[in-house]
This record gives sequence, structure tokens and C-alpha cells, in this order.
Amino acid sequence: MKSIFYSRFFILLPWVLIVIIVMDIDTKRSSVRSTAGSYLARLGDTQRRERPAHAAPAGANRTALPPPPPPPPLIYAVTPTYSRAVQKAELTRLANTFRQVPRFHWVVVEDAGARTELVARFLARCGVPYTHLHALTPRRFKRSGMPRATEQRNAALGWLRTHRATREPGVLFFADDDNTYSLELFEEMRSTRGVSVWPVGLVGGRRYERPIVENGKVVGWYTGWRADRPFAIDMAGFAVNLQVILANPRALFKRRGAKPGMQESDFLKQITKVEDLEPKAKNCTQVLVWHTRTEKVNLGNEPKRHQDSILIEV
Amino acid sequence: MKSIFYSRFFILLPWVLIVIIVMDIDTKRSSVRSTAGSYLARLGDTQRRERPAHAAPAGANRTALPPPPPPPPLIYAVTPTYSRAVQKAELTRLANTFRQVPRFHWVVVEDAGARTELVARFLARCGVPYTHLHALTPRRFKRSGMPRATEQRNAALGWLRTHRATREPGVLFFADDDNTYSLELFEEMRSTRGVSVWPVGLVGGRRYERPIVENGKVVGWYTGWRADRPFAIDMAGFAVNLQVILANPRALFKRRGAKPGMQESDFLKQITKVEDLEPKAKNCTQVLVWHTRTEKVNLGNEPKRHQDSILIEV
Repeated sequence: MKSIFYSRFFILLPWVLIVIIVMDIDTKRSSVRSTAGSYLARLGDTQRRERPAHAAPAGANRTALPPPPPPPPLIYAVTPTYSRAVQKAELTRLANTFRQVPRFHWVVVEDAGARTELVARFLARCGVPYTHLHALTPRRFKRSGMPRATEQRNAALGWLRTHRATREPGVLFFADDDNTYSLELFEEMRSTRGVSVWPVGLVGGRRYERPIVENGKVVGWYTGWRADRPFAIDMAGFAVNLQVILANPRALFKRRGAKPGMQESDFLKQITKVEDLEPKAKNCTQVLVWHTRTEKVNLGNEPKRHQDSILIEV
Repeated sequence: MKSIFYSRFFILLPWVLIVIIVMDIDTKRSSVRSTAGSYLARLGDTQRRERPAHAAPAGANRTALPPPPPPPPLIYAVTPTYSRAVQKAELTRLANTFRQVPRFHWVVVEDAGARTELVARFLARCGVPYTHLHALTPRRFKRSGMPRATEQRNAALGWLRTHRATREPGVLFFADDDNTYSLELFEEMRSTRGVSVWPVGLVGGRRYERPIVENGKVVGWYTGWRADRPFAIDMAGFAVNLQVILANPRALFKRRGAKPGMQESDFLKQITKVEDLEPKAKNCTQVLVWHTRTEKVNLGNEPKRHQDSILIEV
């Protein structure tokens, strides 16, 4: 009698242990997956470009099994950048933020005739999946009173239209290189079906600008500057579903007749209407991105001729 | 015969499975521990203050076993901060960086008569282990030409001396809230035995300043401003072992006779000598931190009276 009891006990005990261990692992994995999980996966692999967002199961005939749930949309953050003293610093703190965003692809577009060594080296080591493009702004557009980064944003749109298929779930966001981004912002924009909007801090001469929302629809704009703009919103205040970009192949940022501060409106009116905007960030009541500006660096003491004994990248 | 075989098989199989599963978990855990592991551990737990750096094995007599290897030193980053339009934005991008540094403790010191709601709420949610202090700068010191953040840095030194024991491995670093930090910087400073130094970008009117190193010793300073300073280095250019702070209980930042730009020298000469400095960042040839400055925000369009229908934190 005793021996039967013992043998059953020793047969059952390890199975119970296995069930407990497996349940424990599952709980831990799912709790970390959403935020830092993909960061971990990227750590070992320094140089990588695109990964296919998801492989369409073409050819395979799987009628018996239900299709797997689609992966969450990939966020394409487009960052125009140009050579200046603070460039590497700005890219460093952006990468420090973006590294923690799962399913993220950084499209960095240099205002240059060719990709620079500095940016190429930085991106290769930054731990964020990326694509490195370049587009030179013609000299006649490099004046104050002219909109900035037009050519670079259009180069990114062109890249998306050439390299991304209509079945890939994705969201496009214009992430200028000196703004400040919270991680929450990216989870808000990820569910964008058409064009989504949210408040932006420290912009337009005010503490914040925001779309005014009533019954889940945008009905106006809280702004301190040209409230008559069709979309009175900063470049950091909206995201667009990749399918909207692909379905409107001619939507671009314009040079002809473009004015600073009107780029967002000019672009958005090509792809959406105010009444179709999707309010994010708790009906546009939370500031999750800030239009910070970095001071131009004083290099007044920089020697005319190189004085240090070595060359150092800054 | 057959039944004996089966019973043994069913008794042994689950134990083998348990061993395999446990080995698998261990491998995975150790591979992520070094970088983002501690970030993961912090994710679930939003409000937390200090954790003891390591429990000294007092009382326990373990002569048979070798002592476990000591944990790597905890980095104490001291960030003075004050209320202004960009404060939350600056803290947000700092937290985005610090969240990825393992064994890190953020000492945030507000220039205020009491801890503010905004900073307290931010820290509670930021995912970085922290201590929240405050110290008010007397009004007579709030003028241009006066060194800044003296009281806040001294409050942090006081807290360390009161709350940290002489056996805890730690490293102190002064992390101003608008600088830009690479993750590599923290791994460089972690091995500081006395006082370590490295280059700082975008400071002193130059692209960078750096200690000049010969045969592993600091022999001078590459700087564009007052090269005659005993330690011609920015606040972001050095770290101090916690034991040095505890062994020099009277070392503080001075108000009496202090001049901007001399704070670093005044403080460092109380605790070290130039010839004892430990060069980091490949003998001070790499820029891993940048003295970026954020523009003051233009709030020219902010209405005198609150116009929005709700209150929004920025």
C-alpha cells in the first residue's frame, strides 16, 4: 500500500512541477514582450537594415489551421537630419528613445549629396533597425522663410512607396531630430487606421497645441498661431497609416508656394479630412511629445587650425 | 518486465524535462542581464525608491564557500532640476536614456522649497530607480554670474553620506538635465576607483574639451577657456567613487567666492590630485557625452488667462 502511494506521488510530483514552471515562464515572457522585448532581440545584432514586416504565407495552403494573428503594425519614423555640431548628440538621444520601441523602423534622411560616414557609422552601431537615405536640399531653398526638410521627407515617402507592399501593416510618423518623445506616444500611434492626431507640447508660442475633440471627432484646434490653418498641427502631432500613403501615391510635401507652418496642412489635405482624424492620447488631452529646440552651439573658441594631437569625432 | 520499464521511464522522463527547462531559463536570463535585464525587472514596479545596493553578509559565517563576487558598483546620477516649460520634456528624455543603464540610481534634486507634484508623479512612473530630493537656492544666488545648482548638488552629497555605507560599491556622477548621454558613458565610469575623467562634447566654445593623457596619466587639458583652471573640465566630465565621497565628508560645492566655471575645480581639488585622475573613454579620445543646451521656450502666444476647456500637464 505504502509503495503504491510513493510511486504515484513520485510520478505526479514532477509533472506538477513542470506545469508550474511552464506557467511561470509564460507569465514573465508576456509581461516584458510589449516594451523591451524587441530591444533585447536587437542588442546582439548591430548592423541590420530592413526586416520584412511579415512574410505573406503565399504558396502554403493552410485550410485546416486558423491564420496566425497579424503582427502589430511597424512604426516608420522619418527623421530628416543635417550636418552640424549637435547632430550626433541629437541622434544619440533619439536612438536611446527609439531603441525601446518594439516593431520600429527608423528612416533617417540626410540633407546631403551622399550618405555621410558619421551618420552611417552611428546608425550601424545604434541598435535600432533603420534605413539610411539622403536627399540634398537645393541651395535656393536654404533660406529663412522657406519650409525645411521638404526633400528629405519626400525621399522617405518615395522609399516607402517603392519598398513596402500594400499588405504590410505600418504607421508613418515624422520624427524631427530635436523633439522629445515619450515611449507612450508610439503605442498611441500604433493603432492608427487612417490619420491620427494628438497634442504637441511647447509649440506655436504656447505651452501646447491640441486638436479639440467632441464626441470622438476633431472639431477645432487649440493653437496660438494661425488657427485658420486647415490642420493647425505640428509635424510631430500626427501619424498616417502606411496604406493611406500607398493609396495616395502623389501625396507629397510641396515646394511650390509652400510656407513654413503650412507644410502639415498642405500634406494632410491631400490624404484626409478633418472629420476623419482619429484622436489619440485620451481624446487629445495628454502631451506625449514636446517640440524642444536645441541651442545652436557656440564654437567661438574653436581654433582656426586643428590644435589637438588627434582627430576626435563629436 | 515491461511494466517495470514503463514505470521507470515515466518516473525519469519528467525529471529530465525539468532539468532541461531549468537550464534553458538560466541561459536566457544570464544573456539579458547585463543590459536591459534590470530595465525589465523594473517595468512592473512603478513606485520604488532605493534598494539596498547589496546586503553585507554580516552575521553569517560561511567559511566553507568562497564569497560571491561583489555586484558591479551602482551609479548614482545626480540631476539638479528646476521648474520651467521644458522641465518634463528634459526629464522624459533623460529617463529614456537612464532606463537602459543597469545598476543605476537617479538622485533628482529640485530647486524648490518642497518636492513638486509634477516631478514626483513623473518619477513614480519613469521606470528608473530614484530618490527625489529638494533644496531651494536662496534668492540672492539666483543671478547671472553666480554658479548654479550648488545647493542641489550639495543636498545630493548630504543624502549619499547619510544613506550609504562605506562598504557599498558606488560611483557618483553629476548628470545635468539638458546634456546628452550615450549608454557607453555609464559603462566607462562604472570602474572608477577614485576620480575618473573623459572628454565632453560641445563645451567651452569648442567642439569638445578633453584631458590630455600621456602614459595613462592626465598631463594637461585641451580647452578653449581658462586653461589655467586646476581641473579644466565640465561637470559632465568626471565621476567619483562613492568611497571618496564618504572618506571626505567635508567636500562640498562652495558658494563663498565661487565663480561659474570654477565649481568643478573647487570641488575636485578637495578630493583628488590631477596626477591621480583615471582617464576613461580610450585614454580620453572618445566623446560619449555632449553639453547640449535646450532653447528657452517662446511662450509669446500663451494666453494671459486660461483659455482651454481642460487643464493639461506639459
